[in-house]
Amino acid sequence: MVSSQVVNTYPLSSYTFGTKEPKMEKDTSVADRLARMKVNYMKEGMRTSVEGILLVQEHNHPHILLLQIGNTFCKLPGGRLKPGENEMEGLKRKLTSKLGANSPALVPDWQIGECVAIWWRPNFETIMYPYCPPHITKPKECKKLFLVHLSEREYFAVPKNLKLLAVPLFELYDNVQRYGPVISTIPQQLSRFQFKMITN
Amino acid sequence: MVSSQVVNTYPLSSYTFGTKEPKMEKDTSVADRLARMKVNYMKEGMRTSVEGILLVQEHNHPHILLLQIGNTFCKLPGGRLKPGENEMEGLKRKLTSKLGANSPALVPDWQIGECVAIWWRPNFETIMYPYCPPHITKPKECKKLFLVHLSEREYFAVPKNLKLLAVPLFELYDNVQRYGPVISTIPQQLSRFQFKMITN
Repeated sequence: MVSSQVVNTYPLSSYTFGTKEPKMEKDTSVADRLARMKVNYMKEGMRTSVEGILLVQEHNHPHILLLQIGNTFCKLPGGRLKPGENEMEGLKRKLTSKLGANSPALVPDWQIGECVAIWWRPNFETIMYPYCPPHITKPKECKKLFLVHLSEREYFAVPKNLKLLAVPLFELYDNVQRYGPVISTIPQQLSRFQFKMITN
Repeated sequence: MVSSQVVNTYPLSSYTFGTKEPKMEKDTSVADRLARMKVNYMKEGMRTSVEGILLVQEHNHPHILLLQIGNTFCKLPGGRLKPGENEMEGLKRKLTSKLGANSPALVPDWQIGECVAIWWRPNFETIMYPYCPPHITKPKECKKLFLVHLSEREYFAVPKNLKLLAVPLFELYDNVQRYGPVISTIPQQLSRFQFKMITN
């Protein structure tokens, strides 16, 4: 059995970043978002969303790529699966929609890796838990976070209304106030991996 | 690739608990503990410790077995490896020392599973991080947490000065004040597993 898994991590400088047309948020408020979630639940049942953890390195420390909306809110690239859609295929589709160039030849060949966390939304509310709470038989959302193994060179196209940030693990750790419970505990979930820092 | 791993979890009532001679803590204060750590570091270099996450279920929800010392402090069963000792063998030795019966025939055949977290102690201080902080070239301790897969029936012998508690994930989650940063984020680290609740 392997007790540590090695993840190759390349410098931020080995990636190229361009822009593309804006990807607007579907909802303009949390209330709108929860209301839309409820409508979709009635039609399609539990929502499954998938998000990707893309790692780069700077100063010999792992950083995670986050999309920033406005001045404060950060999220992982990803989104909701279509009903019946395969998780891996759905995550690739969402990563391409969020970060892929319009020209298919430039879109990264996304290598989806390990599932590192699963979060559950028991009600049509913002709070999620890293387990399905007892007595909840019909959770409203299941969100899965996957490692995405990047190649040494990639081109990312960032929607014009968003910023792509490389945030170090030490900035995320113990920072629930700024990043929320899901993103701020990614350092703990990644701690079992050994990051091989490759410099060029 | 498998995106969810199944862990069989048996009811707390399927296990038997007895007692054995007390296992006293080697140190009576945090200051003593850090001083002893420093002395050992000078002799043997970085300390590696291994701890086991033993899961049971109650009311269809996973619970973790914690050893309680006095009225407040809880810890996972485990301890420090001897210099050069294999992690798996060392964890089995420590689990037997903490929870195994004196009669070898009654000691569980410990099945050590996945490493779920690695914590680093950069200095001779209580604070640990789920990564080795940048610029720290000589961490003082590396602590690894492993899943331990229990069989359907086991006998545990609990040292008389300790209590063995089965603590639900929902009690640990977001409860850093009571359980500290390492134990309180176990629910997030286990979230990727699917717990198969077996009832008897």
